[in-house]
Amino acid sequence: MNALKYKGYLIDLDGTMYKGKEPIKEAPHFIDYLKKNQVPYLFLTNNSTSSPDEVAVKLKAQFNIPAEASDVYTSSLATAEYVRQLEGDRVFVIGEKGLIEALEAAGCTIVEEDIDHVVVGLDTELTYAKCERASLAIQEGASFIATNKDTNLPNEKGLVPGAGSIVALIEKSTRVQPTFIGKPESFIMESALNKLGLDRTEVLMVGDNYETDILAGIDNGIDTLLVLTGFTSKEDLKNVTSQPTYIVDTLADWRV
Amino acid sequence: MNALKYKGYLIDLDGTMYKGKEPIKEAPHFIDYLKKNQVPYLFLTNNSTSSPDEVAVKLKAQFNIPAEASDVYTSSLATAEYVRQLEGDRVFVIGEKGLIEALEAAGCTIVEEDIDHVVVGLDTELTYAKCERASLAIQEGASFIATNKDTNLPNEKGLVPGAGSIVALIEKSTRVQPTFIGKPESFIMESALNKLGLDRTEVLMVGDNYETDILAGIDNGIDTLLVLTGFTSKEDLKNVTSQPTYIVDTLADWRV
Repeated sequence: MNALKYKGYLIDLDGTMYKGKEPIKEAPHFIDYLKKNQVPYLFLTNNSTSSPDEVAVKLKAQFNIPAEASDVYTSSLATAEYVRQLEGDRVFVIGEKGLIEALEAAGCTIVEEDIDHVVVGLDTELTYAKCERASLAIQEGASFIATNKDTNLPNEKGLVPGAGSIVALIEKSTRVQPTFIGKPESFIMESALNKLGLDRTEVLMVGDNYETDILAGIDNGIDTLLVLTGFTSKEDLKNVTSQPTYIVDTLADWRV
Repeated sequence: MNALKYKGYLIDLDGTMYKGKEPIKEAPHFIDYLKKNQVPYLFLTNNSTSSPDEVAVKLKAQFNIPAEASDVYTSSLATAEYVRQLEGDRVFVIGEKGLIEALEAAGCTIVEEDIDHVVVGLDTELTYAKCERASLAIQEGASFIATNKDTNLPNEKGLVPGAGSIVALIEKSTRVQPTFIGKPESFIMESALNKLGLDRTEVLMVGDNYETDILAGIDNGIDTLLVLTGFTSKEDLKNVTSQPTYIVDTLADWRV
């Protein structure tokens, strides 16, 4: 195996570059090597609550991983890119700062009335009033877009509800299914390839989560590297039909 | 058809006794007749937010329908009756006053920690923090009980999210299905029959909603009267296999 077989990398964050609040010690060296060899890469995350700036600061300060905001592509940025292409710019948001900023930067107006699009991501300030507003707008014809379908995310308390669980409430009350944007969906992958300026056959998707990272590769014709430092275990792979292109215990085992 | 064929009645409220804020003019006479003939009845509602007292006051004051608190059986009362039978009395509630009061009256302690049971009903003060707490408790082994599965309820704004939609969020984030209590489930029906002191063959279930009222009868061996003053239309019945026992345009057509 040879890293230089690939002209570019799409790299997941939590479970791949760090694990919750803990560093993954092989990660900084992996990124250093890509930089040294001028191999372009993009950090690709379903996290919709943080801005690229915040993600870059966290990578550098907490995990000693070199990163600029421009190296980070979030499900919020991809969602804003998707909404920008639609007709109408009046958006009602269930989501946090990262999502709201991305939508505003893409020219959307965040509104509570005369809603063209309802965009749903993780929102730890979720209220019934927000759900009611979103549900009524969708029933009245607004489109329904969701940053990502992750049902849970880990925090210090355990596996707490993720965007996909909030989406389930809105979906149930409207009988409308959203357009999902984040991994493993095509939109974020196409968009990330565009940003890298590379073809899908030239890029490797690196991640720890079969359902998001690896399926994102498999479903979109991109080779995949599963790293066993996070969510998915070797055991889990016995239950899936399509296997990752490569599997390594840690990023140190990826021969560069 | 003859009302006296049945020794007792289970009677839905919204869509049957009134419609939102509007009276249904045939309803008071129907109840008067049952009273005059000393036919026992129970108002049976999936509404979990109001107490029986509040429901009775509303029926009398707004709709001129004679009612005492003891004539009203809500999904909250049935839920409290169900939880009372379980081991452990520490309950975390997503729900409103009607549900909390019913659980407390049944001997439960409402808690935020060391949770034995998570009970979910409609809660217009829903927050992410409540969803997180409920989800973690269920993942840690608390049982999961829901007042009713109605996905929506009508208010002056439209069809807003109901208990069933809130349940969908918790279900998605825990991968655990709740025990539902309200119509059309067996628990509330058995419990209501017990209160009437009558056998299922002696009772008629009267309601406007096929999915809740009529299925409650069909699934539990109770004859049903669909009244077309509310949710379900004649047209809707073309898509279902099991038909109501009787169908009338209004309660005036039920020959008493």
